Amino acid sequence: MMNPLDFDGIFDTIQAALDEDLGRGDITSRAIVRPRTTARGSFMAKQDLILAGLEVADAVFGSFDPYLQIESTVGDGEEVTNGKIFARIKGDAQILLAGERVALNFLQRLSGIATMTRKYVDAIAGTNARIVDTRKTTPGLRMLEKYAVKTGGGQNHRLGLDDGVLIKDNHLAMAGGVAEAVRRAREVAGHLHKIEVEVSTLDQVKQALDASADILMLDNMTPEMVRQSVEIIHSREPEDRRTLTEASGGINLQNVRAYAEAGVDLISIGALTHSAPAVDISFKIKPE
Amino acid sequence: MMNPLDFDGIFDTIQAALDEDLGRGDITSRAIVRPRTTARGSFMAKQDLILAGLEVADAVFGSFDPYLQIESTVGDGEEVTNGKIFARIKGDAQILLAGERVALNFLQRLSGIATMTRKYVDAIAGTNARIVDTRKTTPGLRMLEKYAVKTGGGQNHRLGLDDGVLIKDNHLAMAGGVAEAVRRAREVAGHLHKIEVEVSTLDQVKQALDASADILMLDNMTPEMVRQSVEIIHSREPEDRRTLTEASGGINLQNVRAYAEAGVDLISIGALTHSAPAVDISFKIKPE
Amino acid sequence: MMNPLDFDGIFDTIQAALDEDLGRGDITSRAIVRPRTTARGSFMAKQDLILAGLEVADAVFGSFDPYLQIESTVGDGEEVTNGKIFARIKGDAQILLAGERVALNFLQRLSGIATMTRKYVDAIAGTNARIVDTRKTTPGLRMLEKYAVKTGGGQNHRLGLDDGVLIKDNHLAMAGGVAEAVRRAREVAGHLHKIEVEVSTLDQVKQALDASADILMLDNMTPEMVRQSVEIIHSREPEDRRTLTEASGGINLQNVRAYAEAGVDLISIGALTHSAPAVDISFKIKPE
Amino acid sequence: MMNPLDFDGIFDTIQAALDEDLGRGDITSRAIVRPRTTARGSFMAKQDLILAGLEVADAVFGSFDPYLQIESTVGDGEEVTNGKIFARIKGDAQILLAGERVALNFLQRLSGIATMTRKYVDAIAGTNARIVDTRKTTPGLRMLEKYAVKTGGGQNHRLGLDDGVLIKDNHLAMAGGVAEAVRRAREVAGHLHKIEVEVSTLDQVKQALDASADILMLDNMTPEMVRQSVEIIHSREPEDRRTLTEASGGINLQNVRAYAEAGVDLISIGALTHSAPAVDISFKIKPE
Amino acid sequence: MMNPLDFDGIFDTIQAALDEDLGRGDITSRAIVRPRTTARGSFMAKQDLILAGLEVADAVFGSFDPYLQIESTVGDGEEVTNGKIFARIKGDAQILLAGERVALNFLQRLSGIATMTRKYVDAIAGTNARIVDTRKTTPGLRMLEKYAVKTGGGQNHRLGLDDGVLIKDNHLAMAGGVAEAVRRAREVAGHLHKIEVEVSTLDQVKQALDASADILMLDNMTPEMVRQSVEIIHSREPEDRRTLTEASGGINLQNVRAYAEAGVDLISIGALTHSAPAVDISFKIKPE
Amino acid sequence: MMNPLDFDGIFDTIQAALDEDLGRGDITSRAIVRPRTTARGSFMAKQDLILAGLEVADAVFGSFDPYLQIESTVGDGEEVTNGKIFARIKGDAQILLAGERVALNFLQRLSGIATMTRKYVDAIAGTNARIVDTRKTTPGLRMLEKYAVKTGGGQNHRLGLDDGVLIKDNHLAMAGGVAEAVRRAREVAGHLHKIEVEVSTLDQVKQALDASADILMLDNMTPEMVRQSVEIIHSREPEDRRTLTEASGGINLQNVRAYAEAGVDLISIGALTHSAPAVDISFKIKPE
Repeated sequence: MMNPLDFDGIFDTIQAALDEDLGRGDITSRAIVRPRTTARGSFMAKQDLILAGLEVADAVFGSFDPYLQIESTVGDGEEVTNGKIFARIKGDAQILLAGERVALNFLQRLSGIATMTRKYVDAIAGTNARIVDTRKTTPGLRMLEKYAVKTGGGQNHRLGLDDGVLIKDNHLAMAGGVAEAVRRAREVAGHLHKIEVEVSTLDQVKQALDASADILMLDNMTPEMVRQSVEIIHSREPEDRRTLTEASGGINLQNVRAYAEAGVDLISIGALTHSAPAVDISFKIKPE
Repeated sequence: MMNPLDFDGIFDTIQAALDEDLGRGDITSRAIVRPRTTARGSFMAKQDLILAGLEVADAVFGSFDPYLQIESTVGDGEEVTNGKIFARIKGDAQILLAGERVALNFLQRLSGIATMTRKYVDAIAGTNARIVDTRKTTPGLRMLEKYAVKTGGGQNHRLGLDDGVLIKDNHLAMAGGVAEAVRRAREVAGHLHKIEVEVSTLDQVKQALDASADILMLDNMTPEMVRQSVEIIHSREPEDRRTLTEASGGINLQNVRAYAEAGVDLISIGALTHSAPAVDISFKIKPE
Repeated sequence: MMNPLDFDGIFDTIQAALDEDLGRGDITSRAIVRPRTTARGSFMAKQDLILAGLEVADAVFGSFDPYLQIESTVGDGEEVTNGKIFARIKGDAQILLAGERVALNFLQRLSGIATMTRKYVDAIAGTNARIVDTRKTTPGLRMLEKYAVKTGGGQNHRLGLDDGVLIKDNHLAMAGGVAEAVRRAREVAGHLHKIEVEVSTLDQVKQALDASADILMLDNMTPEMVRQSVEIIHSREPEDRRTLTEASGGINLQNVRAYAEAGVDLISIGALTHSAPAVDISFKIKPE
Repeated sequence: MMNPLDFDGIFDTIQAALDEDLGRGDITSRAIVRPRTTARGSFMAKQDLILAGLEVADAVFGSFDPYLQIESTVGDGEEVTNGKIFARIKGDAQILLAGERVALNFLQRLSGIATMTRKYVDAIAGTNARIVDTRKTTPGLRMLEKYAVKTGGGQNHRLGLDDGVLIKDNHLAMAGGVAEAVRRAREVAGHLHKIEVEVSTLDQVKQALDASADILMLDNMTPEMVRQSVEIIHSREPEDRRTLTEASGGINLQNVRAYAEAGVDLISIGALTHSAPAVDISFKIKPE
Repeated sequence: MMNPLDFDGIFDTIQAALDEDLGRGDITSRAIVRPRTTARGSFMAKQDLILAGLEVADAVFGSFDPYLQIESTVGDGEEVTNGKIFARIKGDAQILLAGERVALNFLQRLSGIATMTRKYVDAIAGTNARIVDTRKTTPGLRMLEKYAVKTGGGQNHRLGLDDGVLIKDNHLAMAGGVAEAVRRAREVAGHLHKIEVEVSTLDQVKQALDASADILMLDNMTPEMVRQSVEIIHSREPEDRRTLTEASGGINLQNVRAYAEAGVDLISIGALTHSAPAVDISFKIKPE
Repeated sequence: MMNPLDFDGIFDTIQAALDEDLGRGDITSRAIVRPRTTARGSFMAKQDLILAGLEVADAVFGSFDPYLQIESTVGDGEEVTNGKIFARIKGDAQILLAGERVALNFLQRLSGIATMTRKYVDAIAGTNARIVDTRKTTPGLRMLEKYAVKTGGGQNHRLGLDDGVLIKDNHLAMAGGVAEAVRRAREVAGHLHKIEVEVSTLDQVKQALDASADILMLDNMTPEMVRQSVEIIHSREPEDRRTLTEASGGINLQNVRAYAEAGVDLISIGALTHSAPAVDISFKIKPE
């Protein structure tokens, strides 16, 4: 699994979060905790969860003191059950208190995303479909949230507007139709890029195949329509049969398996990043 | 109501979100939409919601072109019902498409927070209690999320660790008790700051009153314990009777009214900012 | 005593000062001093002074080479007498020369502030009053200068406009009076903030007490008026008797004790940060 | 006269000063002053002073709103007498209050420097000497302070370590003498740079002339020694007679004229920038 | 044609170039040119060239004053002949002189790239091949240089390491062969990305086709080997026949047509960006 | 020789180049190379060259991992012959691949400049003239390119517009002539700066000498005109005979010696930095 600390700008993100919380400094801890007092802290899961972001939390404390380190027997992607102490840290008490809230804010959100992702992945187990995320991420946290999706077992859709050609309904409105939009895209796109196009009717499915689109995003279709779309693809010439399909829109934990069983390749779920509730994790310290 | 654009650093936050999404540029729109094509876009609520962040969304588009402006007949803090087009924008189509996702990511999250806050505020209507937020905010979005809470009718707790003295359980563990912790805080705190202390037993309530704490955070108490705590305060000397109380921990839409009716002054809800689901809003454009 | 290196942004401030001085590099030392020559440098007080900023000076050299360290037998807050060598450093001669002026510029200014502060603190020894600073600090050096005041024995007033509610004459002019201004402040201020109001007549003192202000800034009053103000407070109901007072304006080393003896709690002195002359310190190196 | 706003980075310096003061915002003015209230403000001299920094103060307010502008009948470099209202501004009251302290902090410091410089310049009127500043400036404000010196009638010495070759006592200690130090400097210095060397004895004066130094800094000499140094120069070969001299160290308003009359070309005064007290200026607003 | 000013960070790049050149300011022009003097400037080609970067040069001057604008009858991508004045600008003389060198440095380099690119494009006119660039660009100027290539008639290869999967010899060395490398890439790459692999023998061509690579980079092959590679592709199953080919390495203006005629789709030329000599352009001003 | 890593901002320049190339990460190497695989890499000269920038290349890899280090038996300024492996590095394969292109882009460009500079220096061997560079450098790389010129044996002209007074034709056009321009410059320039003026006729040579300019830039003169200019200088009063001369414009490897033999002190060559072709260097890795 990739390390979230490899993301460009992650340390700036962490520092900005700390600056935002600390402002001119933690006036409570400065007043109450004696300088250079050592404490031991422990992270406890207050619900079952899939862990994500432990190295980010570690980097939060590390930004105060590079020698501070979280010790843990579980890692990102593993399940932690309610009541389990899954990580410990020992160090300067003022630093532990200064970093606590920011570390938890990252850890609870990212684990929340991984936990929800895992539920979707489990729901389609045994099918050929894969769960993918969207660009509906928290401003400023895209790469971390996409990391949490992978940690939960999902896959990443494009990382940004420059990371793939995806022709959506608004583009179709501007271009005047699927055929023309795909034609324009192919003319300009670099030779390393594939072309995905959003379609919402079976007629558009055919237009997109005629235009040799590489991937079809089946938008807001019922599982039955998805099945018919896949059948259309399979009935075409050999070249078109390799066209991938992605189901998108209105999909939830109740109906996701129906989509997967309809033969789609990818199922994108915006809620993974825009609406996953934070998981509950506590952090308690005591003097050594 | 305060303007979210007054927050220090908000334009950097918006620009970072755009950089994160655009990378080296929106390759799809550049390929498909003719330069200098004008389009009209409309924002439609896909569920009932309390609006928050419209000026932020406006600033997203404004960061491309200062003359681009969202026009709307409703403003932040107002309710928008499912299906209503609540805002429109007209301008360069490539810009509308480049800013769309980031504008929506802000708008859907902030409105999600305002919408959840309003539910809590409505739930305690008629009592003397007020709903307040916490520091459990999304890293990087603290001020915007606290703005959304106010927009929904809540009040803000401290904005950061430098914005008030709040002695929590971890501080008590380090100081060795309520009395000593409050004493240390009073010794060091500036003359403009009050002192709040977290207590979880009725005994600690008395200790905190003896130490002349200004505010008591009643942590994870039942409504009945909260009521007893308030009674203890009312039974004290005149000076102590002005001590404020805040209920915190384990409070949800089902039980919040019981806490309010127990006589508490403030009720803090972490979920407002860490677990409010995004509301559903669509943005559609068409050529003019 | 707090470490000045804990201030958010202090390393940026140091780097900016070095960039400002070095520009494209120290062309004199590069020409004259052989690379990798070791030298010994010593800091000597050229007048009696209270030391402040030694760790900042250390960080100046440390920004070139983390292993470079000032060694000293005295620390911030201690008195150093004229002619005493109070600190030494050994290291690369080009670095010592490149950092010399910036290190001294910090050290001489901060020690100048601490030295002046100590004189005020000594002047009121034995009274109940405390010396506090103001926001009349050097642009860019607020936190360091406030640190120097504490080092000299003073206390800090609010650190910025967000760090306390202080209603001044210009606010009163806009609100139309003390009562209305305090009322508006109480309505909006967070529950952790106290309210201080500037008053310049005995009548305003009474208005502020009636409005339950927490602290009165007695502006440009004579010591006699200050005494009368304090008496008014003591003659009020028990609750009001806890109201703090701060004398401000027109106070100097000659009259400060009279203010302290008038019974005021706090005496604020703008000159501590806007007009303290730099102390004289020399730095001499020689090859090892 | 050059405009201080031309300095590279000046707007960053202003913004940093505002950020430092405002933090998360001016909580007092937000509470007390109604949004979109217009006020008129006036700047009054509370002592005689030479004005410097009016455009910087203007830029402070302008950083909130580009249309806000200070109006004044006097400009930088002019004398303003005690009691005179020398500038006015009209605009949003919250902005005037948010910018007030920072604008004054710049204005009072820079005018303090210009005021002290003017005194030195006046003290040597009629001689051939010129007053110059040093690198003993406030960290972060070098260019503004050097501007204030020029505004007061002084001249600028080098702006930083890259802006001229100045061989000082510490360099001589490393090079082993004046002759060797000047030789090394000439070997490496670009063809556009002159070479100045610090000398403190008449013997060193001769060594420096033998080494063809372009400028001699006469360090900590009495006026009589300065006179002898100048005479040595005049007794040399034609080429050496063009060598400039600079008096430095231990010079104050009482003895500066004696140095000037000793025939020196430049007199450098560190106190101009490290110890000039701020001048007293008030800013009062009232609702329009 | 895309506008180079759309590139993320271009204004920072321009400002950095100006800062680098101006340092503390243009001391010559400040001394010699009277403030607020208007001058007229003209840009003249001193050789035949393809223009690229005119809007960048315009933005250089615009960064001093947004109302300053270059006027021109030709645009990027057009040929300008030796001796022709192709652009004029009128404005503050100090600004024209301060921006001159930086504007020319951009304009001469970018036009140099466009001019060389045009020669390669002309050399293969009438064939089906296209000229593409590489990542061998000047550090910090990638997007501008890739823009210049497009301006000259070339096409852009991937913009960075994240903009496409290109398996090169060093990757093959690590993976142990073409088949394994392509397999690993396909497993991990997002569904929107194609896979290009570098091959240098006909055997590797076959391996890559067997592995279903989307594009083959034919490295350091002779035109004859390129022709054989293309023939191999054409002799394969229908699916493989759509595989693209790119010739790379050792290609110059003398042999480029032979490669194009060998049937390759893309020809990449590193020299376009790493070795194109600057074109000669003069800028002369005179007072109005 | 000075270390290029001493340049202010060099690490920012390197990081920006890496960010530009890596974007969201090296998707190819992440897919193909196993994490934590060690590889050995070697740099080989593919032509004869003068090495420049090895420490920059080293810092590129060092920015990923401070323990990664290039090992080499040759250093900057030394000649490396075609086919020689001149440097090796061992470390994490993903890092070597991520840094490869940026390291080479720096190394090939800087060595290209040093290689061309050496040719000019060799061409005038035995004369008294020196080769100097100009401000015609790549935007963003000025200090590195000037370092490469020194590495090749040249000298640096001024580093920026603030690093010397150089009156050029455009200044003369604004001032109305050589005499007036030099007069204005002398009036304003700091006492540490010399004054250079561009002249293009023998008459201007005399005017510049009459105005006591310190250096004459002989612009676009033939070697014969240069000789006559030098003779004019030698025929003047003793003071003027020390005036330096610089030949500039239209000088190439064929005619540079004629200029040197004409008696000029400095010969400036813009092509050193604006048109030196990159040298060819390969970097190959293999698993350990």
